[in-house]
Amino acid sequence: MSLVFGQIEPAVFQAYAFWAAVLGLKMLLMSVLTGLQRGSKKVFSNPEDVKPGGKVAYDDPDVERVRRAHRNDMENILPYFIIGFLYMFTGPNVTVASNLFRLVAIVRISHTVFHVLVPVHKFRGISWAVGFFTTVFMGVRIVVHFL
Amino acid sequence: MSLVFGQIEPAVFQAYAFWAAVLGLKMLLMSVLTGLQRGSKKVFSNPEDVKPGGKVAYDDPDVERVRRAHRNDMENILPYFIIGFLYMFTGPNVTVASNLFRLVAIVRISHTVFHVLVPVHKFRGISWAVGFFTTVFMGVRIVVHFL
Amino acid sequence: MSLVFGQIEPAVFQAYAFWAAVLGLKMLLMSVLTGLQRGSKKVFSNPEDVKPGGKVAYDDPDVERVRRAHRNDMENILPYFIIGFLYMFTGPNVTVASNLFRLVAIVRISHTVFHVLVPVHKFRGISWAVGFFTTVFMGVRIVVHFL
Repeated sequence: MSLVFGQIEPAVFQAYAFWAAVLGLKMLLMSVLTGLQRGSKKVFSNPEDVKPGGKVAYDDPDVERVRRAHRNDMENILPYFIIGFLYMFTGPNVTVASNLFRLVAIVRISHTVFHVLVPVHKFRGISWAVGFFTTVFMGVRIVVHFL
Repeated sequence: MSLVFGQIEPAVFQAYAFWAAVLGLKMLLMSVLTGLQRGSKKVFSNPEDVKPGGKVAYDDPDVERVRRAHRNDMENILPYFIIGFLYMFTGPNVTVASNLFRLVAIVRISHTVFHVLVPVHKFRGISWAVGFFTTVFMGVRIVVHFL
Repeated sequence: MSLVFGQIEPAVFQAYAFWAAVLGLKMLLMSVLTGLQRGSKKVFSNPEDVKPGGKVAYDDPDVERVRRAHRNDMENILPYFIIGFLYMFTGPNVTVASNLFRLVAIVRISHTVFHVLVPVHKFRGISWAVGFFTTVFMGVRIVVHFL
């Protein structure tokens, strides 16, 4: 693989692309999780979707928990996508950048695990905070670099 | 138009940019649709927004339907933006890639049509699924390519 | 700094990257604002998060106001990120493009100020509209350019 852009190291771009795709697929999975919860709890959001024995409701705790995790992904992963992308143009160290991309992907996956599958407030909080401050770090680096 | 990036075919980038902009504009339209529904139903989300004869409410079925469609766009189109972008770097066939970008745009538009304008569960479901699995396909291609 | 992409003026890319990072950081701040409101009102969204004296609730006006502002950011800033990025490839005038990027960042910050900190319907509405129509303008330019 040759240089992708003039100013991005191929290894950095490779790490970004790989982990961004992993995170994108992980986000898409949240829709499937929501659908599975809706099916098992027979709770739907549109009248035309309701299956026999089901009802429209917006307060099922299990469905809403998945939806909160999904929204948290939108709040954190979607801004990360552009911040991580632009961070590549600040000339970061290859090892540092690659590992930060990997780190964000791992903690966002563990955030979902500790929010939806095995709810543990402490580990969910740590997962969120590591992803949050890593993204803030990248954002500040971009602001300083392009000032 | 010359090569945009070293590794992207101009025709692929052109198709991505065109259809991504169409989808971006379509998403922005959802805010207008929500505003129109709020105005016609006189239902608002902030006390300071309420017009004479109106009230604050979060359970109007027509307003909430548009907001669900808008959130569904955020859940599906926003991850697609980055996945579709990175997919261009996997060296896809020009015809395949261009048509996948077109396909995602068309089914996301039809998703809104069948959710908000003419609610039909079956067609909305097919629209969502085609967009979802096309994005998953692109995401898996990126993961495999940059492994 | 040399040319970033063959077709983007360095000054345009610099303005985009700087203001996009500012906006990304501003969005991340919304999570902190939500957390502060939850802590001060003792209102939480997950049972496992509740602190002594607190409760689970989804209708606290102050918490929900921040969450609406945050969602409005997702609806407007996230599509702007990709539309602003692609707009750079339409060969815009350097001064125009740089100032549009700055404008969007400023009005999205003032939108949050007039929604959450000093609620003023009129100024919030103007802030939203300026950001919205600037993004629509960029989107239309992309569609025309890559038609």
